[in-house]
Amino acid sequence: MNKLSFPHSYLHKIQYYETDKMGVVHHSNYIRFFEEARTDYFEKTGLGYDKIESLGLIVPVLHVSCDYKASSAYGQTLEIHLKLVEFDGIRFAFEYSVTSQNGEILHATGKTRHCFLNSNFKPVLVKKTHPNVYEYITKLLEK
Amino acid sequence: MNKLSFPHSYLHKIQYYETDKMGVVHHSNYIRFFEEARTDYFEKTGLGYDKIESLGLIVPVLHVSCDYKASSAYGQTLEIHLKLVEFDGIRFAFEYSVTSQNGEILHATGKTRHCFLNSNFKPVLVKKTHPNVYEYITKLLEK
Amino acid sequence: MNKLSFPHSYLHKIQYYETDKMGVVHHSNYIRFFEEARTDYFEKTGLGYDKIESLGLIVPVLHVSCDYKASSAYGQTLEIHLKLVEFDGIRFAFEYSVTSQNGEILHATGKTRHCFLNSNFKPVLVKKTHPNVYEYITKLLEK
Amino acid sequence: MNKLSFPHSYLHKIQYYETDKMGVVHHSNYIRFFEEARTDYFEKTGLGYDKIESLGLIVPVLHVSCDYKASSAYGQTLEIHLKLVEFDGIRFAFEYSVTSQNGEILHATGKTRHCFLNSNFKPVLVKKTHPNVYEYITKLLEK
Repeated sequence: MNKLSFPHSYLHKIQYYETDKMGVVHHSNYIRFFEEARTDYFEKTGLGYDKIESLGLIVPVLHVSCDYKASSAYGQTLEIHLKLVEFDGIRFAFEYSVTSQNGEILHATGKTRHCFLNSNFKPVLVKKTHPNVYEYITKLLEK
Repeated sequence: MNKLSFPHSYLHKIQYYETDKMGVVHHSNYIRFFEEARTDYFEKTGLGYDKIESLGLIVPVLHVSCDYKASSAYGQTLEIHLKLVEFDGIRFAFEYSVTSQNGEILHATGKTRHCFLNSNFKPVLVKKTHPNVYEYITKLLEK
Repeated sequence: MNKLSFPHSYLHKIQYYETDKMGVVHHSNYIRFFEEARTDYFEKTGLGYDKIESLGLIVPVLHVSCDYKASSAYGQTLEIHLKLVEFDGIRFAFEYSVTSQNGEILHATGKTRHCFLNSNFKPVLVKKTHPNVYEYITKLLEK
Repeated sequence: MNKLSFPHSYLHKIQYYETDKMGVVHHSNYIRFFEEARTDYFEKTGLGYDKIESLGLIVPVLHVSCDYKASSAYGQTLEIHLKLVEFDGIRFAFEYSVTSQNGEILHATGKTRHCFLNSNFKPVLVKKTHPNVYEYITKLLEK
């Protein structure tokens, strides 16, 4: 993995309740780690949840995928790297790489796809309705 | 445990994602099993969630407690017995007993306390505002 | 969706603790519903977890993906349809379709990929080591 | 709450997947926050999980209770204060107080009880078998 290609990373300390009887983190939790990293990225770059909400926008998940490369264990700290990779004006996507904190072990890679909805759960063309959000996402794409 | 003293029971099949690295069900999940059994009891006795919602009521949890007696494992089916034990017009409480499906093993006992709120999150004296709900809870108490 | 193409389905009643503040089931839970359906399918077709364990096998998840089509709500019962779609002697895959219980609403589609490991977490060529398991998976493929 | 009476505190940033359709953190998650704080306390005071494991000890939860005082929301950071309050040589207990990060809002209080087991799941009198662990717990009690 080329770490430089990911503009943001987020640390997650693995908790006991995230493990399963195989002794490792249950695979479903990686989908939640992606969400934590995404939230953190939006927040750090200026579009925290309170702001999204005040704009009347909802950001559902349309797609998730995850490829598991190496299991991770209780006590370990994971580093979730992410990058905004697509935006067509309505839908956008993130790619993820989950490594050990020192970057030596690649635990998983993944992708999520999202869109913007208004409070009536209808898709929103943010270029027209929220040009600031459009610019914001476009700028993240270039990073 | 005197099984007869519990008017209702609910079955829960243990899932892999509910286990932890000790190889057994993570303790926090019993609090969720209590909720499943409570939902089922209200539904079977005529106060399903859609009805509670249509009455403009919210039923938060004020207290939970659980005593763990014997661990439970993946593949097992748990039987959650419950009984409404208190109602002072505002707050009510349930007691729980979690056993193996055949009743031979007592896995846990517990208690939860609740109240009725209106949609502004203010406590509601259902005897005045929703006499049907008051009667319903009072009748369950007698079971 | 052609329901006939799925040889097995599994019902999941949505619980309160599975919802999020959007008022619908949190997207990560679908990955858990896939696991529930898979467990049920293996169990019903003769390879329950106790049997897998007694054979010294571990069945990790190598890949998950899920496409979300329509949100699902508390109180609803979901039907998870699944089908074994690939097996190359080492890795096998399932496809999923999540619908409302009456089949009218398609909530999600998905895929998971798995392999067999021995207790030292090394990949196992079941055709050689566990011919019965090889035949079992091959037969499921034909359904 | 007298903050001084709690020797340790731990911060937890609330995640989207921890909320429920009431728009607040689902009550079962507080039991998990207690575990996070406990793990952190043991780790910071010198008895991290790897050490407990290398000593051949298991530390199950015998009891949990939680009283919910005020709901908490997505985006908020909770501070979980804890204190070791009992130790009879076999069993020990923690008390918890969950506040907003500034300490102004008391969200919940709680208690958990634990014991030490050996790898055969039998209770261990650590005063005899692991005098260092006995001293360690006794010292935490005095804080």
